Amino acid sequence: MIRGNDPILLTPGPLTTSLATKQAMLRDWGSWDAAFNAITGSLCEDLVRIVHGEGTHVCVPMQGSGTFSVEAAIANVVPRDGKVLVPQNGAYCQRILKICKAIGRACVELPIPEDQPASAAAIEAALAADPSITHVAQVHCETGAGVLNPLPEIAQLCARLGKGLIVDAMSSFGAIEIDARTMPFDALVAATGKCIEGVPGMGFVLVRKDVLEASQGNSHSLALDLYDQYVYMRKTTQWRFTPPTHVVAAFRAALDQYLAEGGQAVRGERYRRNCAALIDGMRELGFRPFLRPEVQAPIIVTFHAPDDPRYDFKTFYAKVRERGYILYPGKLTQVETFRVGCIGAIDDNEMRNVVSAIWLTLREMGIDMAAQLAKAA
Amino acid sequence: MIRGNDPILLTPGPLTTSLATKQAMLRDWGSWDAAFNAITGSLCEDLVRIVHGEGTHVCVPMQGSGTFSVEAAIANVVPRDGKVLVPQNGAYCQRILKICKAIGRACVELPIPEDQPASAAAIEAALAADPSITHVAQVHCETGAGVLNPLPEIAQLCARLGKGLIVDAMSSFGAIEIDARTMPFDALVAATGKCIEGVPGMGFVLVRKDVLEASQGNSHSLALDLYDQYVYMRKTTQWRFTPPTHVVAAFRAALDQYLAEGGQAVRGERYRRNCAALIDGMRELGFRPFLRPEVQAPIIVTFHAPDDPRYDFKTFYAKVRERGYILYPGKLTQVETFRVGCIGAIDDNEMRNVVSAIWLTLREMGIDMAAQLAKAA
Ligand SMILES: Cc1ncc(COP(=O)(O)O)c(C=O)c1O
Ligand SMILES: Cc1ncc(COP(=O)(O)O)c(C=O)c1O
Repeated sequence: MIRGNDPILLTPGPLTTSLATKQAMLRDWGSWDAAFNAITGSLCEDLVRIVHGEGTHVCVPMQGSGTFSVEAAIANVVPRDGKVLVPQNGAYCQRILKICKAIGRACVELPIPEDQPASAAAIEAALAADPSITHVAQVHCETGAGVLNPLPEIAQLCARLGKGLIVDAMSSFGAIEIDARTMPFDALVAATGKCIEGVPGMGFVLVRKDVLEASQGNSHSLALDLYDQYVYMRKTTQWRFTPPTHVVAAFRAALDQYLAEGGQAVRGERYRRNCAALIDGMRELGFRPFLRPEVQAPIIVTFHAPDDPRYDFKTFYAKVRERGYILYPGKLTQVETFRVGCIGAIDDNEMRNVVSAIWLTLREMGIDMAAQLAKAA
Repeated sequence: MIRGNDPILLTPGPLTTSLATKQAMLRDWGSWDAAFNAITGSLCEDLVRIVHGEGTHVCVPMQGSGTFSVEAAIANVVPRDGKVLVPQNGAYCQRILKICKAIGRACVELPIPEDQPASAAAIEAALAADPSITHVAQVHCETGAGVLNPLPEIAQLCARLGKGLIVDAMSSFGAIEIDARTMPFDALVAATGKCIEGVPGMGFVLVRKDVLEASQGNSHSLALDLYDQYVYMRKTTQWRFTPPTHVVAAFRAALDQYLAEGGQAVRGERYRRNCAALIDGMRELGFRPFLRPEVQAPIIVTFHAPDDPRYDFKTFYAKVRERGYILYPGKLTQVETFRVGCIGAIDDNEMRNVVSAIWLTLREMGIDMAAQLAKAA
C-alpha cells in the first residue's frame, strides 16, 4: 500500500510545522544539563524581545497546553481579592470566565456579539459601572470565530485607568504586532504550537517583573505557580519540574526559523497572504466568511456551512482530509460554520490547493454552491 | 569539527529514548482528528491493562509534567474536607506535602529516614492516631534516594481500613509490578518520560472509575480538573485542551516497544541487570551505595560522593559528560551524594561503560578511591 503524504493541518494549533522543527526532536536532552538550560534561557530572552519588553517584562515558561498558562497568569497576577472583567466574544473568553470561577477569582462578563470586536469604550463603561474591578482579561485574537480585538486601545485604556491587564495572545503572538511599550500589559500568554510554529506542549507568560515579584502566595496551585517557577529558574536556570525537553528543543528550532524569516512583520504578512488567498478562493466557490473583513484576524477564518441538506461537517471533513487537508469544526453555537486556519508552515499556494480540495469535495457530495450564491445575492 | 554522539542520559526522566520513539515525532497530528484520538484511546487502554485495572479503573491523561498529574489526582480524589497522610522519605514525598498545602488539603506528615522504606505498621499507627485522616498518599519508588516503598502491604492496609490511597508511581510504573486487583488504589500517577521510555510532556492518572465519577467539583483548577478531562474525553474522544501531540505519538511508539520487549517483567529485569552492573562496577571503584540492597529500587542509585578535597560534583559531572554520560546530582540534604539512573533505552553494557568513564574521570581529577576503600574498611 502506498501511503500519501501526511495531511496538512489547517487547524490553528496544533498546526503543520517544518521538518527542521520536528527534526530538532531527534535528540534527548538532560533537564539538569547546561546545554539544555541555555536553550530555555535563550528562548525566554527572544520571546521578551518580540514584544519589546526588555527591562520591564520577563518570560516564564510553563508546562502544559496554553490554557495552563492562562490559568497560571490569572492566578498569579490577580490577587485573591481581585476582580476580573472579561470582554466576551467567543469560546476562549468563556474559558477565562470558567478559569476565574474554578480558581475563585471574582469576575464580570462583558458580553459582546461573537462577530464583533471588543471596544475600549464598552470596557471603559463596564469599569466605570463597577469600580471594584481590578483587572481586565482580554483575548487578543478570539480564535473561536477569528475576531481581532483592538489590543492597543484596550491596553492604553487600562494603563490610563490603572487597571491590570492580562492578554490571551495565544493565537496572535508572533504574527500580529504587540508592543509592551505602547500597549502596556501585566501579563501576556501564548504557547509554542501557534504562530511561532513549534509543536504543542508548553505555554509561556510574558509578565511585568514587578507584578510577578509581588505575586508570591497568590497561586492556588503548586504546579501552576508562575512565581515559584520564575524564582527557581532564575536561581538554577532549570525548570522546577521536568520540562518537555523535546518540545523546548523544537520551539528553539521554530524560533530560529521565525527570526531568519524576518520576525513578526514577515510572518504576519505571510499569514495575511494565506488568509486573502483562502477567502478569495472560497468566495469564488460561493462561501461566505462569517466575519466582516475589518474584524477578521489573518489567523483563522470561519465560513458559513453550505445551506444544503446534503452537507454535514463529518462527511465534508473526511473527504477534504482524504484530499490532504485537515479542517476545523466551527465553534459557534448559533450558526453552522466550519473553520480554516491560515497559520503554520504553509503558504498561499497551500491555501489555493485546499480551495480546490473543497471544490472537488462539494462536487462529490452533490452540493451546488452556485444555487447558494444565487440565493445569497 | 566532529561532534560526538549525544550523551547518554543516566537521569531518571528525561532519559535516553530509542530512535524509533523519537522518529514518531516526525509527523504533525490534528487534535480533532480521529487518527490521533484513536492513539490516545489505545494508550489509555494499554495503561489500564498494565496494572490489571480493566473494569475498575480508567486512565485520564493530563498535559504537563508528572507533578501536574500528582496535583490533579490529589485535588480530584481527596474531597475538600479530606485529610491526607504522607509517609515521607524523600523529595517527592515532600512535594506531595507542598501540593496539599498549596491547594488547601489538610495533610499529616509521617517522617521516615530517607534511607528507610515506609512500612504498613507505621502507617497503621499514624492512621490510628488520627482517625480524621481519609487518604494516604504514597510514593512508590522514592526517586530522591531510590528507595522502594512496600506498596502491596500499604495498599492492603488502606483497603482493610477503608482509607483512600493515591500512589505516585512516577518512576516505577511499567518496571515494578503493580496490580490493582491485589494492591487496591484509588489513583496511581505516572508519566510518559519514565519507565515506558517516552519523551516528557504529559502524565496520566489511573483512577477508580467510581472515585473519579464522584469527584466532580473537587478540583481547585480548571486545567488540572481530572473529572472534567475524563468526561470531555469520554464524550468526544478528544482532549479538552490542546494535547502535546508529538509527545503522545512518541508515547505510543514507546509503549509498542515496551509491549514487544515483553512488558513489565522483561523491562524490570533489564533495569535490575542495569542496576546490578552499575553497583558492582562502582563498588569495584570504591564507591558505596547510599541504600542497603533490600530497599534499593532498580531505578536510580545514590552513591556517596568521594570523600576527597579534589572532588566537586560540577567538575565530576562535566568530565563524565565529556565522556558521554549525563549523571544526576544527589537530592539528599545531609550527605553529599550523586545519582545514576538505571532506566531508559540502555542496557548493562552502557552501565559498565559509565563505570569506566567515572574511573577515567576520577583518575583525571586525582581522586584516589583506593584510599577511601581502605578508610571505609
Ligand atoms: C485565543 C486562545 N486562547 C487559549 C487557547 C487554549 O490553548 P490550549 O488549547 O493550548 O490550551 C487557544 C487555543 O487555540 C486560543 O486560540
Ligand atoms: C517519584 C516521583 N514523583 C514525582 C516526580 C515529578 O515528576 P515531574 O518532574 O515530571 O513533575 C518524579 C520525577 O522524577 C518522581 O520520580
